[in-house]
Amino acid sequence: MSSTNKSNKDVSAHESVGSHSVPVEAIKRKNLERLIARFAELSEDGPGVTRLAYSHLERQAHQVFADEMAALGLVVKVDAAGNSIAELPATESLLKAGLGTGSHLDSVPSGGRFDGIAGVCAAIETARVAIASAPVRRRPWRFVAFAAEEGARFGQACSGSRMVAGLTRTPDLARLEDKNGVSMAQAMSEVGLNPDAVSEARWEADDWLAFIELHIEQGNVLESHDIAIGVVDTISGSSRLLIELSGVASHTGGTPMHLRRDALAAAAECVLLCEKIANDEEHHGTRITVGRLDVDPGSITTIPGHVALTVDVRDFDHQRQRDTTRQLVQAFEAVVGRRGVGMRVSILGDTSPVVLPTSITNVIARSAAQNGLNYRVMASGASHDAQQITRTTSTGMIFVPSWNGLSHVPQEYTSFDDLARGTEVLISALLMLDGCDNLSQTSSAESAQ
Amino acid sequence: MSSTNKSNKDVSAHESVGSHSVPVEAIKRKNLERLIARFAELSEDGPGVTRLAYSHLERQAHQVFADEMAALGLVVKVDAAGNSIAELPATESLLKAGLGTGSHLDSVPSGGRFDGIAGVCAAIETARVAIASAPVRRRPWRFVAFAAEEGARFGQACSGSRMVAGLTRTPDLARLEDKNGVSMAQAMSEVGLNPDAVSEARWEADDWLAFIELHIEQGNVLESHDIAIGVVDTISGSSRLLIELSGVASHTGGTPMHLRRDALAAAAECVLLCEKIANDEEHHGTRITVGRLDVDPGSITTIPGHVALTVDVRDFDHQRQRDTTRQLVQAFEAVVGRRGVGMRVSILGDTSPVVLPTSITNVIARSAAQNGLNYRVMASGASHDAQQITRTTSTGMIFVPSWNGLSHVPQEYTSFDDLARGTEVLISALLMLDGCDNLSQTSSAESAQ
Repeated sequence: MSSTNKSNKDVSAHESVGSHSVPVEAIKRKNLERLIARFAELSEDGPGVTRLAYSHLERQAHQVFADEMAALGLVVKVDAAGNSIAELPATESLLKAGLGTGSHLDSVPSGGRFDGIAGVCAAIETARVAIASAPVRRRPWRFVAFAAEEGARFGQACSGSRMVAGLTRTPDLARLEDKNGVSMAQAMSEVGLNPDAVSEARWEADDWLAFIELHIEQGNVLESHDIAIGVVDTISGSSRLLIELSGVASHTGGTPMHLRRDALAAAAECVLLCEKIANDEEHHGTRITVGRLDVDPGSITTIPGHVALTVDVRDFDHQRQRDTTRQLVQAFEAVVGRRGVGMRVSILGDTSPVVLPTSITNVIARSAAQNGLNYRVMASGASHDAQQITRTTSTGMIFVPSWNGLSHVPQEYTSFDDLARGTEVLISALLMLDGCDNLSQTSSAESAQ
Repeated sequence: MSSTNKSNKDVSAHESVGSHSVPVEAIKRKNLERLIARFAELSEDGPGVTRLAYSHLERQAHQVFADEMAALGLVVKVDAAGNSIAELPATESLLKAGLGTGSHLDSVPSGGRFDGIAGVCAAIETARVAIASAPVRRRPWRFVAFAAEEGARFGQACSGSRMVAGLTRTPDLARLEDKNGVSMAQAMSEVGLNPDAVSEARWEADDWLAFIELHIEQGNVLESHDIAIGVVDTISGSSRLLIELSGVASHTGGTPMHLRRDALAAAAECVLLCEKIANDEEHHGTRITVGRLDVDPGSITTIPGHVALTVDVRDFDHQRQRDTTRQLVQAFEAVVGRRGVGMRVSILGDTSPVVLPTSITNVIARSAAQNGLNYRVMASGASHDAQQITRTTSTGMIFVPSWNGLSHVPQEYTSFDDLARGTEVLISALLMLDGCDNLSQTSSAESAQ
């Protein structure tokens, strides 16, 4: 996709915009490329990037973030939840309510180089531009790398931002466990964080005017329609279950079919039920996935005695999300009852869908238009830190295109031109918000346009 | 179960038998118990016994076997395949055709203490009794611990005995791989064996009169009918497939249901097809199992891109065994075709069912009867080294009861009284065979009874 293809003929061109725009040449595409490569180095062995929540590798990535900020003259504070925050102070000392941007640095197993990291790199570049180009700025600007956004390890997504929002607290950290039985509290302690002090990580609403997260789309709407910028108005909710099935392990040769209680056969029925329910006429837009399925003992000649599987239910309708989760558990109960297999159900995570405020989506849309970029207002199927931050302050999200819509895989890719464009829109939007005394101005500005 | 319950009133009691019986007090139940415990110590961490084919632990178990034999004054030779063999020489020097007994020392992952090991312990005890009690004996008696019987690691079962029988050769050893991509040849080299010399491990038919393997039943026929001894007349065949399914991994939130190519959903259909076909009216007696199923990347928030699963097809009818395997692959092809998922099929192992010669089953049955034990002639659903050895010499199998029919699990158990009874039958049967000039005598002896 060339830059020309993405210019939006219906909106005013770049040069006519005035003080809220940033000279596009101020954003260094090469700098974004360097940062993405630097973070990608921090990975477990294997395909793609594996840098799990509350691992030493994740903390090393936060140190890289701190080093980059230090090179710009900013000091990073790490809170008890492991989130890293650097502040560029207000130029008007009475303006305490700041603007923030950032995303996360952890990954799923064998994930990509861009999910989360793209938003952190955009934040670093935003800080650099804000310092180097010194545009007219009044409020504190804060640059954030959230910890433990991916739910892959502990089931719960957005743990760092949930602690910031007061949604996850110290007692929850002992309950959440990874598949090796390591609790989130243990994992945090092992990397030098303090699980007992996470209440201190909480943000105060008074300190904030707004927060904008830049993220890769993780779907293929933007690419397939040749659109540069996604303006997110809704973020999907997600309910996550761990289903543990207990049958009877025995010899595959010695045990006749009618005497079996095969945990894997029961699990296979559950997997297909997830797919069937997600595809029925009452679930248009619901997505249900079994992403993990562990078979024990996992030997060719042993009937599986135990299977653990995860179910991820995503919906934009919070009522349907919870109803579907209940419906699945009931359907699974019928399967295991018929098969004489035991079942234990645990809730790993449960996040409601959110609608992001128009006060922010309007600003992002205007910023894209003023930078001569076409955009689409769209929903996010994935969960994001921004979803949690809405509890504290007005939050928006900027999506940049994902190659082939792929994410959570080693092939995950976003062109650096696309990432630079997204960063451009991010900086312009922050500058627009910086000029507002309160967010109601953004709506009036929009209607005036 | 008390010993009394198992006495067979229809056959002559112990004291009337004469030279082919062994005084039951000669067999030391405590010795069997000690040996079982000694081998159980050699295990990877985790539940049950994990001592995989061609692992260092398996070799350590073979060293224990060698030490036990050395304590009896016998020298163990280890062949290129890793099988350990000790010989008690002929007392009549012209009688070259020997008698053998033994089983294997490796285990499945998280298996039990008895599968295979019971037969090796019976062989050690047989050697001890043959030396200590010095019954009338003419032929060489050989005591064998086969290597790599379990197919759990490399897919192919009975590798050590297959090499003895010339069924697995050097070129096969590079082709067979474990799930980490380690070839059987590599694994053998790493434990000091010589994969290039396995042709030298081959047994000559002229050296053998017969071989008897004692093994736990791994089913619950004997226990549920309160029978002491199983006389195996047929061993099930087994065809084993590795099915590798390739879909497209992507984000569970960002990817709508209709755009998915979910390898796990395809795999779930395959698992249920195995069960359905095994249960249909044309497959009475066929057992089909998916025992291993590995999901990649195996993350809650990633649609599975790749699944590898194993299929184990067991049958007593060799034609149906192969037809069923073909039928399964065709059914899987329809599933993956409909779902746009790629499939690769590899054959991990393929062993035909065998009928064991009546010349040996007759002797075992008579031995049980003469020792005052009830017995049942029965089929083995599991594969065994004896199945391979039939290629070289006449082979029989003695089954002893499995607690609750469980096998390949940590709970696997056989009482030491039952194991001592099986050993008694084994020794008597070997003595009967030792007295024969050729095996046709066993049938005539049977008809005379």
